[in-house]
Amino acid sequence: MKNVATLGEILVRLATPKKERFVQSNNFDIDYGGGEYNVAVSLAQFGVPTKFITALPDNPIGDVAINRIRGYGIDSSNIIRQGSRIGLYYLEHGAAMRPSKVVYDRARSSISEVELGDFDWTKIFKGTDWFHFTGITPALSKKAADVTLEAAKAAKGLGLTVSADMNYRKNLWSPEEAQKVMKPLMDYVDIAIGNEEDAEKCLGVSAENQDVTSGELNPDAYKDVMSKLFSEFQFKKIGITLRESL
Amino acid sequence: MKNVATLGEILVRLATPKKERFVQSNNFDIDYGGGEYNVAVSLAQFGVPTKFITALPDNPIGDVAINRIRGYGIDSSNIIRQGSRIGLYYLEHGAAMRPSKVVYDRARSSISEVELGDFDWTKIFKGTDWFHFTGITPALSKKAADVTLEAAKAAKGLGLTVSADMNYRKNLWSPEEAQKVMKPLMDYVDIAIGNEEDAEKCLGVSAENQDVTSGELNPDAYKDVMSKLFSEFQFKKIGITLRESL
Amino acid sequence: MKNVATLGEILVRLATPKKERFVQSNNFDIDYGGGEYNVAVSLAQFGVPTKFITALPDNPIGDVAINRIRGYGIDSSNIIRQGSRIGLYYLEHGAAMRPSKVVYDRARSSISEVELGDFDWTKIFKGTDWFHFTGITPALSKKAADVTLEAAKAAKGLGLTVSADMNYRKNLWSPEEAQKVMKPLMDYVDIAIGNEEDAEKCLGVSAENQDVTSGELNPDAYKDVMSKLFSEFQFKKIGITLRESL
Amino acid sequence: MKNVATLGEILVRLATPKKERFVQSNNFDIDYGGGEYNVAVSLAQFGVPTKFITALPDNPIGDVAINRIRGYGIDSSNIIRQGSRIGLYYLEHGAAMRPSKVVYDRARSSISEVELGDFDWTKIFKGTDWFHFTGITPALSKKAADVTLEAAKAAKGLGLTVSADMNYRKNLWSPEEAQKVMKPLMDYVDIAIGNEEDAEKCLGVSAENQDVTSGELNPDAYKDVMSKLFSEFQFKKIGITLRESL
Amino acid sequence: MKNVATLGEILVRLATPKKERFVQSNNFDIDYGGGEYNVAVSLAQFGVPTKFITALPDNPIGDVAINRIRGYGIDSSNIIRQGSRIGLYYLEHGAAMRPSKVVYDRARSSISEVELGDFDWTKIFKGTDWFHFTGITPALSKKAADVTLEAAKAAKGLGLTVSADMNYRKNLWSPEEAQKVMKPLMDYVDIAIGNEEDAEKCLGVSAENQDVTSGELNPDAYKDVMSKLFSEFQFKKIGITLRESL
Amino acid sequence: MKNVATLGEILVRLATPKKERFVQSNNFDIDYGGGEYNVAVSLAQFGVPTKFITALPDNPIGDVAINRIRGYGIDSSNIIRQGSRIGLYYLEHGAAMRPSKVVYDRARSSISEVELGDFDWTKIFKGTDWFHFTGITPALSKKAADVTLEAAKAAKGLGLTVSADMNYRKNLWSPEEAQKVMKPLMDYVDIAIGNEEDAEKCLGVSAENQDVTSGELNPDAYKDVMSKLFSEFQFKKIGITLRESL
Repeated sequence: MKNVATLGEILVRLATPKKERFVQSNNFDIDYGGGEYNVAVSLAQFGVPTKFITALPDNPIGDVAINRIRGYGIDSSNIIRQGSRIGLYYLEHGAAMRPSKVVYDRARSSISEVELGDFDWTKIFKGTDWFHFTGITPALSKKAADVTLEAAKAAKGLGLTVSADMNYRKNLWSPEEAQKVMKPLMDYVDIAIGNEEDAEKCLGVSAENQDVTSGELNPDAYKDVMSKLFSEFQFKKIGITLRESL
Repeated sequence: MKNVATLGEILVRLATPKKERFVQSNNFDIDYGGGEYNVAVSLAQFGVPTKFITALPDNPIGDVAINRIRGYGIDSSNIIRQGSRIGLYYLEHGAAMRPSKVVYDRARSSISEVELGDFDWTKIFKGTDWFHFTGITPALSKKAADVTLEAAKAAKGLGLTVSADMNYRKNLWSPEEAQKVMKPLMDYVDIAIGNEEDAEKCLGVSAENQDVTSGELNPDAYKDVMSKLFSEFQFKKIGITLRESL
Repeated sequence: MKNVATLGEILVRLATPKKERFVQSNNFDIDYGGGEYNVAVSLAQFGVPTKFITALPDNPIGDVAINRIRGYGIDSSNIIRQGSRIGLYYLEHGAAMRPSKVVYDRARSSISEVELGDFDWTKIFKGTDWFHFTGITPALSKKAADVTLEAAKAAKGLGLTVSADMNYRKNLWSPEEAQKVMKPLMDYVDIAIGNEEDAEKCLGVSAENQDVTSGELNPDAYKDVMSKLFSEFQFKKIGITLRESL
Repeated sequence: MKNVATLGEILVRLATPKKERFVQSNNFDIDYGGGEYNVAVSLAQFGVPTKFITALPDNPIGDVAINRIRGYGIDSSNIIRQGSRIGLYYLEHGAAMRPSKVVYDRARSSISEVELGDFDWTKIFKGTDWFHFTGITPALSKKAADVTLEAAKAAKGLGLTVSADMNYRKNLWSPEEAQKVMKPLMDYVDIAIGNEEDAEKCLGVSAENQDVTSGELNPDAYKDVMSKLFSEFQFKKIGITLRESL
Repeated sequence: MKNVATLGEILVRLATPKKERFVQSNNFDIDYGGGEYNVAVSLAQFGVPTKFITALPDNPIGDVAINRIRGYGIDSSNIIRQGSRIGLYYLEHGAAMRPSKVVYDRARSSISEVELGDFDWTKIFKGTDWFHFTGITPALSKKAADVTLEAAKAAKGLGLTVSADMNYRKNLWSPEEAQKVMKPLMDYVDIAIGNEEDAEKCLGVSAENQDVTSGELNPDAYKDVMSKLFSEFQFKKIGITLRESL
Repeated sequence: MKNVATLGEILVRLATPKKERFVQSNNFDIDYGGGEYNVAVSLAQFGVPTKFITALPDNPIGDVAINRIRGYGIDSSNIIRQGSRIGLYYLEHGAAMRPSKVVYDRARSSISEVELGDFDWTKIFKGTDWFHFTGITPALSKKAADVTLEAAKAAKGLGLTVSADMNYRKNLWSPEEAQKVMKPLMDYVDIAIGNEEDAEKCLGVSAENQDVTSGELNPDAYKDVMSKLFSEFQFKKIGITLRESL
């Protein structure tokens, strides 16, 4: 069984209970979210030894997040305690025809203000076989992008398998900004994960004659994108994520 | 009955229910707080026509705050919708010997990033007799201090009674910073409210031979402070706030 | 944007949480309902300046209803405080094959005991373009029917557009009682809203050869009903409400 | 062990949870109250076979009240199902210096609209040794007073011990109204229960030189009142209720 | 209307609220379950006079179960108070693709440790027309099986109709154990209820050429099983239970 | 900083919320308790590396307990998963004059059915400086007492400091049973913790002329008990626990 490390943000999720609307509710159900955190939770639930690496403020709310992480059996010993806040998002669950609403309040979180050198990657990656990150972390801030690159380089240098889920987020950056950061990161990535939109927005690779928003899957377009990705980058494997909206 | 306007911040209060500790709780009870907001609520409950002036993000969480303000019958029509977030604080109620815990997350809220000219004071103060602010708002940021001064000047110029509650907050600024901002503001204040610590920290006025932390009230010291305040500033009235810890 | 006034009842809704049955539940979720109140809330949410006109008891429960109304930005300044109670209904949400249960307890609410002259319509309708009522309010009591007629007459006389949603409620009155009250009201209505059943029960107008309960829509029957309504009453427009049970 | 029957009203109690104020709360905790109902619950908890006699509407909310009564092991088989509503009251628990608030909505409840002959007292009192009522039930309405008298007469005639707790409620009737109803009822009472205020308001008997509101207990005044009560009425025993406000 | 008695276990059901997972939840919603208890509740809701017979510990948790039973109008006077615990089960409601999870903790409950002679069947069955049990109770323990047989014999001897729902539970016993206990019980049963799996596992009767797990209903196989059951046992009627998974 | 291991039971605590009575409540707040578990939580909160050793059933409820333990940063890697249940207790919080009620349901929990050899003490105590247990664990069952002795012997043999909190529980065993088990255990204990009652019930050592239940502390009696304990056992230190009832 591999020993995996993920780097990213853990956000407090404040959701209205019982599908109440924001304007009706006097309470929030507290939970935690974040792309890399969710991966760490799933791996730990499947029994894979997992480390989650992030920065959290050194206050009681940061303590609670640590407890939650440890609760799932995830190794939290490499989390650094600095910065001033944990990011959060407000969630109003949809009901029937009413869609869900999400309001993010994540700017200037501890992880988005980390500096090069804050993490001791050699120590962190000791005994670790695999390093996983997503395109969300480098999108948080220039500093977070620098630290992600630092981590990917260190992991690659230490012989870990490195995987990256593109996960393009349009409310965090533009395709131009994304490509400027993501393309250099790919030099250290063994396994790339994403869909056609991610390939286009994060890596600038798109299929001929394919309309991403048409709702129809075109197998040929996928093959085309993948062969372009394999030729432009040195990926060992590419994972395609498909999500069907029910 | 006077028509009152207050300027300040409204914060989301996220409190653990049933005196649960942060580490135990899965829920937050939602309420709202803030020095000037609380004054506006109390005045409205007593039937005084009241305007609350602030900035709130133009998102659903800002909408909820507006609804709450309107719910108390407070005039919310001068609240501007701009900036990126509403400040918040986490509260763990104490129990028996365990004290309460408060974690603030209010930096860079919409009100702390207002600019000179964002509010149209002539329009806002039309039909208003009284303007009230506290020392918390100018402590939030340089910008908030500038806007508070702009408001106090406008109010004074338009013939309103101006009251200010010093309310020194040591986690927001130092006595030096406070005095640099608060003293010039006093030129526009008719009624000053505070205690000895506020007088010393915000206005640099302290009694002879009085130890603020002794827990003993010294009537002579109070008289001394008040006569100094009246001679140094042009206050019409001074209100002294005493709070007994039960 | 039009300025709208609606007249009607606001009811406390006491619903069992989490689809619990009445016999299981120790709690009620509190919300508010009422045909005209719901219209006022929707208009206010869309940004239309809206007044809600009703009577509420002068006690803390009435205060809470006022706060809720104001919270949505609805003008509550024309609500009169008199009478002894606010109507209420108990709701058990259905689940799977179990249907919802509703128990009304609305008799002798403040709005059902208003008297002619209690409202100053000239003042209320000042600056208002549109008056909306439904067939529920005149069904509450003889007094409420008289006041609805008084309001409709005043609105028409002052040049407002008047709309009426028939909304026949079989547990409040019989077709005979409804027609005796609703037909005279139509003299002041510009826009009538309803479905075939409403037309038949409230206005005594029915289509040839149409079984309301068949579940099949017959376009010709609708045309027939509408041409009869237009010829019998002086409506400018007729809105047909269709509701599909999912 | 005696077999006891009590006659009276059971009210739904809608209390805000966690000491929330009415204006803050989105929920009510449901409980049940009522002077005679509470006596029935206490007796049943102590193992005394107890019947509770009342009228409840024949709807699901009435069903729930029945279930609650049966849950305590109280015999509910003599409760009649008629009338249109169950009375209720809203409760806001006080906190610190803020007092509790109670808003009653009990007018025209099923029990207040019972008629002579609705209950078959011979059947109800079969196997019963003791009948208990309070001054609240006859205060509800003329009809409820008539039925209370009917019950007391029947109980006395059938050889039961009859006890009455005066329980004067100033928001239900005046001393004049109370005495007109309560004095004739005393002809059938063996054991009277109350305090000095009850004696004065319900039975017109007061001590010389005693100020009920002074907060001081005057033993001589009590003796004086009791000797007057024993001489004016044919009570076998008198119970004095004292309540200390903590 | 028949007067029915059921014998069995009542279990505390501790379910996570709002479809929370066990690992997330800080609360359990309390309810009660159990095959025979559920039958008693349904009968009582339909107005059938019903007795529920079980053993419960003589502690406050047992008291609560009694109150719940009485609340539904079920006769609880034959429940014996002995043994040390009430059985319970933990329930995590499923959501979307995630199935529900149930964890039983019912071993050594009071009902599973009853002894022959603990119940006075002659007294219990007085005025009772029908006795119902299921295959769950005899599966709980040897003692519970013995007492079920004792009850069935007594009921049959006293002229009651006896019905038995096979309800094979694979986590309580094997087919061999089940048949050893259930077959002798059938001598006292008038009406047998079950499906094909029950017939095979509890009574050793199976259809030719039928795959219980195929998901297809084979009417001929049912006829075959029923004719075998009628020929092997002296049932007057057989009820077949079909449940469709939606 | 010492590295501590504790051995004992973790119990699910099911408490009625908001001081509701058992008979009123539809919900339980879930928490966890247990003497040694509480010590482990406190040590971990103070930053002491701590291992908690117990047995838990291999089911989802056991998983939740593990998560809770890990959440506090306690090392759970030596917890064995076997047996059939986790012990639990029901708690009704007292209010005003009404005392709390506790109902235990802990018999035959996984920890009470452990066998000699189930734990690998050499491996468990590697890197551990201190072993702590209480008198509750050996009181659970003969097997639990045997395993506690096995652990204490191993700890002593491996050079750990061993501490024992007597914690006499009268509902688990008698003084005779306690002394038979606890006295031999003391051969391996460096630090004994307890009060006078514990000394008397668990170790058979009592002061001259002292009434434990008098409520008065007698310093001389304490000295007498301590000198007897020091002379009879080889304790290095003795800690006296005093608890004042407020």
